[in-house]
Amino acid sequence: MRQTLQKALELQVDQWMNTKADITLDNCLGKVVLIEAFQMLCPGCVEHGLPQAQKAYQLFSPDDLVVLGLHTVFEHHAAMGPESLKAFLHEYRISFPVGIDTPADKGPVPKTMTSYQLQGTPSLILIDRRGYLRWQKFGAISDLQLGAEIMALIKEEVVDGISLDQGDGISEETRKSQSVLCDDHGCRV
Amino acid sequence: MRQTLQKALELQVDQWMNTKADITLDNCLGKVVLIEAFQMLCPGCVEHGLPQAQKAYQLFSPDDLVVLGLHTVFEHHAAMGPESLKAFLHEYRISFPVGIDTPADKGPVPKTMTSYQLQGTPSLILIDRRGYLRWQKFGAISDLQLGAEIMALIKEEVVDGISLDQGDGISEETRKSQSVLCDDHGCRV
Amino acid sequence: MRQTLQKALELQVDQWMNTKADITLDNCLGKVVLIEAFQMLCPGCVEHGLPQAQKAYQLFSPDDLVVLGLHTVFEHHAAMGPESLKAFLHEYRISFPVGIDTPADKGPVPKTMTSYQLQGTPSLILIDRRGYLRWQKFGAISDLQLGAEIMALIKEEVVDGISLDQGDGISEETRKSQSVLCDDHGCRV
Amino acid sequence: MRQTLQKALELQVDQWMNTKADITLDNCLGKVVLIEAFQMLCPGCVEHGLPQAQKAYQLFSPDDLVVLGLHTVFEHHAAMGPESLKAFLHEYRISFPVGIDTPADKGPVPKTMTSYQLQGTPSLILIDRRGYLRWQKFGAISDLQLGAEIMALIKEEVVDGISLDQGDGISEETRKSQSVLCDDHGCRV
Repeated sequence: MRQTLQKALELQVDQWMNTKADITLDNCLGKVVLIEAFQMLCPGCVEHGLPQAQKAYQLFSPDDLVVLGLHTVFEHHAAMGPESLKAFLHEYRISFPVGIDTPADKGPVPKTMTSYQLQGTPSLILIDRRGYLRWQKFGAISDLQLGAEIMALIKEEVVDGISLDQGDGISEETRKSQSVLCDDHGCRV
Repeated sequence: MRQTLQKALELQVDQWMNTKADITLDNCLGKVVLIEAFQMLCPGCVEHGLPQAQKAYQLFSPDDLVVLGLHTVFEHHAAMGPESLKAFLHEYRISFPVGIDTPADKGPVPKTMTSYQLQGTPSLILIDRRGYLRWQKFGAISDLQLGAEIMALIKEEVVDGISLDQGDGISEETRKSQSVLCDDHGCRV
Repeated sequence: MRQTLQKALELQVDQWMNTKADITLDNCLGKVVLIEAFQMLCPGCVEHGLPQAQKAYQLFSPDDLVVLGLHTVFEHHAAMGPESLKAFLHEYRISFPVGIDTPADKGPVPKTMTSYQLQGTPSLILIDRRGYLRWQKFGAISDLQLGAEIMALIKEEVVDGISLDQGDGISEETRKSQSVLCDDHGCRV
Repeated sequence: MRQTLQKALELQVDQWMNTKADITLDNCLGKVVLIEAFQMLCPGCVEHGLPQAQKAYQLFSPDDLVVLGLHTVFEHHAAMGPESLKAFLHEYRISFPVGIDTPADKGPVPKTMTSYQLQGTPSLILIDRRGYLRWQKFGAISDLQLGAEIMALIKEEVVDGISLDQGDGISEETRKSQSVLCDDHGCRV
């Protein structure tokens, strides 16, 4: 059965850091996009998620892969404001663009985090060259698998505005234990 | 300038472990092949190379990737005979097939190691679905890059008996510092 | 030549966290004291210094060793205020008492950091049962050595109000490369 | 209740490596002795136990601590003979003396391993300056604790031929979960 792909929803960002011009997913069409959703005081993000995103940023060609951070603060808001984030990015040598997810009108969870139904931080999102949401994962993913998932999307042929998924070589067992099923209703773990 | 690809030379193996039937590269045509050349008493192999190959073996579908170990003993031969290797594979839970590189008629370096001009252990070799040698590296490679390199070959379209290299998205800078140039004369670092 | 020991200067702390009552070195007399000077946005502190201090806190008996954190903020002050520190300690599960080093009347370096002439963060300070400064180090120290240094002080006999240093078994070579010479003028690397 | 200490039984060693003269515990009287019992094809020994022993060998003064390896082969005997061990020690840069535990007259477990009732590899043994067995542990121990345990014995005063154990500052909880009870019948986990 062929799954129906969902267009990745546009990011709702208040402020961008590490970039001169603001970034939209629309601007990234034609490239694969990796989004690392994180909080600066989240140990799993600092230890695993962000270093991994930084490695991807250094390894792949910017013509093929855009790496973005998304600061999705859903707790300790006072401790993780823009000033704090700026110092954090400086100290941890994070060099890829980072956007601050727009706070909700009501409640602690910011807008993009809600629209993507992210389960927490770190979460990793992959979007294909045509702008379709292809992968979304809460928690740690191995470097080996991430390298493969990114390259699978980089190599995809784009025909008539739709990516042709040729299967990506990840074993079915791994797939079942880790993947996210995306359909018209969104992405669920 | 398009580089000329070289057919991967057949492995010269005395004995296979972890497999019922002997393995030849010819049998693997249609799949990508990863060869981890190692010595059981080589610290870099034990710490990095073999665990990485084992992870690749578990992550990718066997329909897409064949993972092989090649025991290329070029020193301490008496300490790394078949009996020792068997115990080693058992203790370290190496579950993919491992072949013992055939000792040379003369000199310490075994035959496949010589024919591939390997510089030492661990060395990692990638062969594409058509049997062409695509990548050869002495020393450590990051999991992120290996995942990407493998997937680049898995995704390659095969047309008229030759892989169509579409470029693999690794940045030029990384490429220059790490890659192996393969031409009609072989692969050189 | 016997080195002259220096009494550890009292900490100048604005606010304590993770403790009901404020702490002074004077209160700790009779126990060995480990002080981990850190900044919450210092990668080396987060990765190495604080986890190490937490391990020491869990391993040794509170009757023998007091473990204290000292938040010595000398940069990015706005990003590392009390509110941020509180969230940080919560998220990183730091359970030992942490004091906020009192800001200087003038300049970015806080008062205790200045009085101890700390060179940066993380810095580790060891004080003996009699209140003498025995060890001060900027940067990483191995767990093996720290365990030994702490125990050397725990085991010290106290006679007539002065610790009898019996030598601590660390090899002279290690000592030269790592130690801090304390004299009447203070401690220098 | 004061536990009765047991004199450490003499090692039964067939052959020593990394030393000009054979070693006996009797020769080591006056120094603390750390014995790392290992097998060269035991992953936990290679990854944790041996690097830890090597670090202890480098950190402490040889006037205070003697570090010995004991090759206690109880499986895969053919794969771990003296020739193999020699190559292993060379490749892994193990520089402290290593003795080969004497094979049993009957059964796979060698003689010293049996006399010490070791439960497997790696096992770590600590003997005090007077030759009493003070600590014996199967499996991993943290660097922080090992540094402390060694120093506790280095610092012990020796009076009338018996070490005076002043307690070693390790918290009671840690002690209960990790320690070995030594009595006249030996050491049990």
